[in-house]
Amino acid sequence: MQKLKDKIITEGRVLSDTVLKVDSFLNHQVDPEFSVELGHELARRFAGDGVTKVFTVEASGIAVALTTGLALKVPVVFAKKKRGATQGKNSYSSNIYSFTRQESVDIHVNKKLIAAEDRVLIVDDFLAHGEALRGMAEIIAQAGATLVGVGIIIEKVFQGGGAALRAKGVRVESLAPVISLAGGKVEFAE
Amino acid sequence: MQKLKDKIITEGRVLSDTVLKVDSFLNHQVDPEFSVELGHELARRFAGDGVTKVFTVEASGIAVALTTGLALKVPVVFAKKKRGATQGKNSYSSNIYSFTRQESVDIHVNKKLIAAEDRVLIVDDFLAHGEALRGMAEIIAQAGATLVGVGIIIEKVFQGGGAALRAKGVRVESLAPVISLAGGKVEFAE
Repeated sequence: MQKLKDKIITEGRVLSDTVLKVDSFLNHQVDPEFSVELGHELARRFAGDGVTKVFTVEASGIAVALTTGLALKVPVVFAKKKRGATQGKNSYSSNIYSFTRQESVDIHVNKKLIAAEDRVLIVDDFLAHGEALRGMAEIIAQAGATLVGVGIIIEKVFQGGGAALRAKGVRVESLAPVISLAGGKVEFAE
Repeated sequence: MQKLKDKIITEGRVLSDTVLKVDSFLNHQVDPEFSVELGHELARRFAGDGVTKVFTVEASGIAVALTTGLALKVPVVFAKKKRGATQGKNSYSSNIYSFTRQESVDIHVNKKLIAAEDRVLIVDDFLAHGEALRGMAEIIAQAGATLVGVGIIIEKVFQGGGAALRAKGVRVESLAPVISLAGGKVEFAE
């Protein structure tokens, strides 16, 4: 998505070979109209797939998950985060490791919110090592629901999370696949 | 807002005299189209007030802050949460106490995202004791910006946070002011 790539180039800040900050429009400050455009584009890519639910994890994926759900006219569920195990009778849960925060965190979803009949589209702002997505996919499997695919705004391709998911047969769509941040320069795939 | 009150009555669950769960449409699963309606109503109430920025704190306020920002055509900033003090040169921050989680948490915002000229509308899903709002108001004061008011979806009036803010002269608009949850029954003001 060219407009997104342009925005990353003009507003993004490369802090290191692995860290790209897009605080000004994606995950600290959000540009609502641009969020709607991002949601529309993700929805367009999964338009024929019978998605019944959009799924993300708090916090920074919520904005674009909401606009994707709005475009697809389906509810949005966000997994909640908690430190420590919180596996309860009423929740599906998974433990994921955050490389950013360098800690493990438990993500959980009330069982009522994902049913076996659901066809679930995972949406998130970033895909790096894929830990959050692995956890969400686990929750979808616990519910016996179908994972339709994964819609991502910025994929850091060089961190391998996307490749691992695709190797398992998961369809991953990234609106801006970044193949390198070396030398402070953002380089996109294609 | 009658439609919201109806939804609270039909879908909400009163877990105790102080806890109302609205997981199915507001803060675990989100109904995107209804979120847009909520955002429109908050925007309508502050339409003439020259709001330049909507401000919330992660995570559950993000959806309705986004739709309010969309209706007002202004950016949305969300404060990030961290345990432990993270006061840095580049952030405004405040320490708040979460009664739900029974822990203190530091909320912070990059200084670039709120300027002295900004006229800020705080938006959140719930107002109970008002700790999160107190912290956000502190951050707005640190930035030298103007707090235009506070827009809330569900105010638990009996927990006093709204009264404390109003006593300080802050304009608080709640779409569903709940005056009691006693006996498992949701009672609204008016």
